[in-house]
Amino acid sequence: MFKSIVLPVALLGAAACAVADEGQWQPHQLPQLTSELKRIGITMPAAKLADLTRHPMSAIVSLGGCSASFVSPDGLVVTNHHCAYGAIQRNSTPEKNYIINGFLAKTRVEELPGGPNTLVYVTEKVENVTDRVLKGLSPSMSGRERHELVESRIKTLVAECETDKSIRCSVPAFHRGLEYYRIKQLMIRDVRLVYAPSDRIGNFGGDIDNYEWPRQTGDYSFLRAYVGPDGRPADPSPNNVPYKSKDFLVVSAEGLKNGDPILLAGYPGRTSRYKLPSEIRFARDVDFPAKAASITADLSVIAAATQGNPAWDVRYASVAKSLNNVLKKTQGLMDGFARKDIAAIKDVQDAEFRAWHKQNGNGSRNLLGELDSVIAQDMAQSRQEAAWAEATHSDLLKSARTLYRLALERQKPDAQREAGYQERDLSFIKARLTRLEQSFVASVDEARYGAALARYARIDAKARPQGLDALLPAPNALGAMVKASELGDTAKRLAWIGKDPEAFRKSNDPFVQLAVRLHDTGMALENRRNELEGNLERVIPQYMTAVIAWKKSQGKPVYPDANSTLRVTYGTVAPYSPRDGLVKGPFTTVEGIVEKTTTRDPFIVPAALTEAVKQKRYGVFKDAALGTVPVNFLSSADTTGGNSGSAVMNKRGELVGLNFDSTYESITKDWYFDSAITRAIHVDIRYMLWVMKEVDHADNLLKEMTIKYPKK
Amino acid sequence: MFKSIVLPVALLGAAACAVADEGQWQPHQLPQLTSELKRIGITMPAAKLADLTRHPMSAIVSLGGCSASFVSPDGLVVTNHHCAYGAIQRNSTPEKNYIINGFLAKTRVEELPGGPNTLVYVTEKVENVTDRVLKGLSPSMSGRERHELVESRIKTLVAECETDKSIRCSVPAFHRGLEYYRIKQLMIRDVRLVYAPSDRIGNFGGDIDNYEWPRQTGDYSFLRAYVGPDGRPADPSPNNVPYKSKDFLVVSAEGLKNGDPILLAGYPGRTSRYKLPSEIRFARDVDFPAKAASITADLSVIAAATQGNPAWDVRYASVAKSLNNVLKKTQGLMDGFARKDIAAIKDVQDAEFRAWHKQNGNGSRNLLGELDSVIAQDMAQSRQEAAWAEATHSDLLKSARTLYRLALERQKPDAQREAGYQERDLSFIKARLTRLEQSFVASVDEARYGAALARYARIDAKARPQGLDALLPAPNALGAMVKASELGDTAKRLAWIGKDPEAFRKSNDPFVQLAVRLHDTGMALENRRNELEGNLERVIPQYMTAVIAWKKSQGKPVYPDANSTLRVTYGTVAPYSPRDGLVKGPFTTVEGIVEKTTTRDPFIVPAALTEAVKQKRYGVFKDAALGTVPVNFLSSADTTGGNSGSAVMNKRGELVGLNFDSTYESITKDWYFDSAITRAIHVDIRYMLWVMKEVDHADNLLKEMTIKYPKK
Repeated sequence: MFKSIVLPVALLGAAACAVADEGQWQPHQLPQLTSELKRIGITMPAAKLADLTRHPMSAIVSLGGCSASFVSPDGLVVTNHHCAYGAIQRNSTPEKNYIINGFLAKTRVEELPGGPNTLVYVTEKVENVTDRVLKGLSPSMSGRERHELVESRIKTLVAECETDKSIRCSVPAFHRGLEYYRIKQLMIRDVRLVYAPSDRIGNFGGDIDNYEWPRQTGDYSFLRAYVGPDGRPADPSPNNVPYKSKDFLVVSAEGLKNGDPILLAGYPGRTSRYKLPSEIRFARDVDFPAKAASITADLSVIAAATQGNPAWDVRYASVAKSLNNVLKKTQGLMDGFARKDIAAIKDVQDAEFRAWHKQNGNGSRNLLGELDSVIAQDMAQSRQEAAWAEATHSDLLKSARTLYRLALERQKPDAQREAGYQERDLSFIKARLTRLEQSFVASVDEARYGAALARYARIDAKARPQGLDALLPAPNALGAMVKASELGDTAKRLAWIGKDPEAFRKSNDPFVQLAVRLHDTGMALENRRNELEGNLERVIPQYMTAVIAWKKSQGKPVYPDANSTLRVTYGTVAPYSPRDGLVKGPFTTVEGIVEKTTTRDPFIVPAALTEAVKQKRYGVFKDAALGTVPVNFLSSADTTGGNSGSAVMNKRGELVGLNFDSTYESITKDWYFDSAITRAIHVDIRYMLWVMKEVDHADNLLKEMTIKYPKK
Repeated sequence: MFKSIVLPVALLGAAACAVADEGQWQPHQLPQLTSELKRIGITMPAAKLADLTRHPMSAIVSLGGCSASFVSPDGLVVTNHHCAYGAIQRNSTPEKNYIINGFLAKTRVEELPGGPNTLVYVTEKVENVTDRVLKGLSPSMSGRERHELVESRIKTLVAECETDKSIRCSVPAFHRGLEYYRIKQLMIRDVRLVYAPSDRIGNFGGDIDNYEWPRQTGDYSFLRAYVGPDGRPADPSPNNVPYKSKDFLVVSAEGLKNGDPILLAGYPGRTSRYKLPSEIRFARDVDFPAKAASITADLSVIAAATQGNPAWDVRYASVAKSLNNVLKKTQGLMDGFARKDIAAIKDVQDAEFRAWHKQNGNGSRNLLGELDSVIAQDMAQSRQEAAWAEATHSDLLKSARTLYRLALERQKPDAQREAGYQERDLSFIKARLTRLEQSFVASVDEARYGAALARYARIDAKARPQGLDALLPAPNALGAMVKASELGDTAKRLAWIGKDPEAFRKSNDPFVQLAVRLHDTGMALENRRNELEGNLERVIPQYMTAVIAWKKSQGKPVYPDANSTLRVTYGTVAPYSPRDGLVKGPFTTVEGIVEKTTTRDPFIVPAALTEAVKQKRYGVFKDAALGTVPVNFLSSADTTGGNSGSAVMNKRGELVGLNFDSTYESITKDWYFDSAITRAIHVDIRYMLWVMKEVDHADNLLKEMTIKYPKK
């Protein structure tokens, strides 16, 4: 009877030799991958996937930091629970606790405002503007001149595109400036909460299970985009009507099985796949360890400073959560780099490339020498920046610096202001300076800054920005400074917006004084960074041109590093072996939830769910092979942060899951995609539909969506 | 490409419904299992396996607590490294550290003495002596009378069998007295160490990996049995010659794959498979938690008392190791019982049985009532015994009690003495009292006893033996008692052997005095135990007779609980899913060793091994499916403590592995065999042979064994 179990480890061993499912492709690149897509079993034509104005790509949207997709013609959007968390939280009260109890609008009028941070971005147009950004750039320009000219051209391109406040445009660089695309998005600003399961489903396993497998998280929620009666985005208003989405995804409850192909579309944030071996060694040996040590120390300081004061503890809970998340990711990177010598792998690739380039590189004899030199400067500069971050690690100081910089920038015409300080950014700045009150306690900030200054003092003198030491407050002065500062008061903090620089220079507020005092050093650092950026933007595109030519000579297309723009990736449903003798995935089941349940969060689930499992009320969502309802599954698709909420589609482009995480062993994928162990974690759509039907009775939404049920 | 990976979790789900590979069968029972053995693919006839005088069973031997087998006609024995550890340790010196470096005798003259504790027991005869043990027992006898009569008949049966000191006989009860078999064994007492790999191979993973999977332990070693020139066992002497083993196992380097059948033969120690639901609840809710708490406390006391004194720490290392092992096992039992409601499963079985018995039980109307009553008394008594164990938890006191009891027993004719205190036991008692010096420090013993007395004082008064409180020393008296006692001195301790009871009663030694003072209470407890044992031995065989009839009505044979006698179990090579989304096993590989290697024990391996792996010098030991050398594997065979070193055989009875451990999730198997998760852990013989060839160059032994290599 056990004979029927095929050896998973053995086969995974062979799987490691498979062609990688690596690549976060720009949709227009997909036709180059036609045979690859066909090979894994995708039946939807690559050309169709390449067209952003056609199904299914026109159903894929961004929430700004998260990905999502339309699932009805009436603006219904599905994304991750953690992406809709802000909207759920702001509507929750102790009496109506939608976080714990979940929320379901049975009718449209019951749908709740998502708040100013809940936005839906619909990509309307993508155009290659490389020529306009780069035309006439002189090789004799300094790096800083070049960078600032490029930035100013981008600002012009953005300004001419943003014809009204419903339109947000951006001009991201691809391959660090080899190409620039202008992306025009419709920004819908009346977005309402339609349905969220209890966070005991949506966040089952919580921080403990973050980056972990086995995983049983129902990380999904529903929002709806609303527009004015004229069909254009409008400020939130009861008169608004559901947005008539041109396209939406059909939901397939037929499910997937191990080995099935998937497509995944979303907005991955940032990757570092084309780093040189020297940069990997710097990250591994210098940057990550320093970062991990600094965060670990900061977390201890926060814990000690909030100890015994539950209200303070709550204020710093989300700060600590986010620091812990970065720490776990950094630790995962360190573990991953320790497990596999990625630098050595890159050494081999780099040597191969350099040998090819020696033969085939035309006219750019010194390119690689120049590249190495700029990269070396970049690494040295980043150590100075890390030291600067420790020296300015205070929320009071950061607020003062933002306000002073804003005052300085506002002296200039809007178009010439630094990006981030233009009129278009003002509301975001205000929101940020207001939101600080939710996660700030003066004495905790004082303790954190004191400890950061002590860490700064221990940094090698050569890695500290020149002249900075003398400008910093003495550790024993901090208490008095914090006491004397009024920036901890939100109203007084916001009152600085609009004041002129002179007012800052004359202020008695110790943190405003410190911000003014540090300004020149900060600007010197920023100017050196801009100089470097300009040089990187000049050299790296040449380098990437050579890399692309080299890859092309091998018949391989090259995708650009992630930059928060729409990408498509593909892969197969697949388990993996994190170590010898162990296989993880590819599916978990509802029985696994019951098995993991304890009497404490984050491992409690609603009783209705436990009941449904115990009664085996699987309905049509039962997987034939598993004999029960699948919850999460793994795929070999290439994802990163920002892909949260991304549609996972089957070979026909039907929605079969939502991406929400990746495994711990995958963390290094931002640097190196190891197809043997890299796995993304998805919610199985059958689990979502099953909870909607059996636990939350969201029949209205099940009816609104177009769902293909399995044939009997 | 991932398509070729079959869903392991799904199939494991189905596997849970499979017929269990449960059963530690007496060899003579195997013909009842003919069709079952055939079903899983065993080609060796059951009748042949049932005959202890024929191959392969006549090659299976006991080391007393461990199992082993002959692998050459010249008395070469293979067993676990941890079973040969004593022999390795006693031959090691700082200069010749065979523990770390391993040991290989290239010629017979280099083979080293295994010491008095290294013995090989060859079973010569097994006869059913039930009639002689039970004949004429009167139902009117008290339990104690019955028990003592049975014990005395057993002693007679043993005495008439042990014709010389080369023969050891025993008469174990099966089903608690339904049957008795007299087992006659040849005890070979010149056993030499032939070959042991470094413990960095033989104990790779150490205590950390104990009960764990993934596992990569090369837990094997070789001994050789020597006899006098006349072929009979003899005291160790250079004149001795290798024992001409009548039988030996052929070694198969062809290996196994997932799903292959296996046979496993050895001497499992003790199981509790036929316990009533009430006994399971008592163990789960009372016994295990108390035991875990007591051991945890004792370990803390040892740690605190040895802190800062490395020499003391070393003395208690093996005590702590063994306590930790029991604690991990107890914790595993508690975890297992918490994970699965075994009591509820037994409730169902028990109710079914009782319903059947009501219909079919003849003449024994009150049997089940009587059973319940005796079992209830047994559980109550065991609480008293646990309290007594705390009240006497001192090595000084235990030594004094042993010595005083020995003096008392020696007043009687040898045949009437309590088992364990007869002439045949004297050398073992002496060895134990001598060995104490290796793991004793007076002040640590004082601290442990003080803490145990404090635990005793917290036990519910009803669970403390009557009158005991008043006899125990006051906590503040312990220091002076320990100081005044001479029992900590080995020579003085041993000098008490042979003294008469009066000498004890007149002694000023505080621990001898305490032993004398506690004697009557201890005997009262022992007499109540004997009364209970007699009742259990009367009732349980009747109960088991009914159970066997009930099972027979379903066509199922019944195996007796393990009792350190030779048993055969079978199963298949099989992975398991410890929880949702995770599959473990069935194989680990040599690459897994390198992957797990750190710079610290127990995760260091000899450089020669790492080199051989890196150079992929797999030779004929490469598994086709794995593409490398397998190290450990899992099977569904039914094992327990005592099965260490057991031969794992393929369908033809050829040696393919050695049993050495089971997984953490399997620990509850001693109480309930859950076929879905119970897995034994074996060394793959290919790993053993590969290390012998590529790492240790044990070519002489590879030549001596009969090895079937895979066909090219």
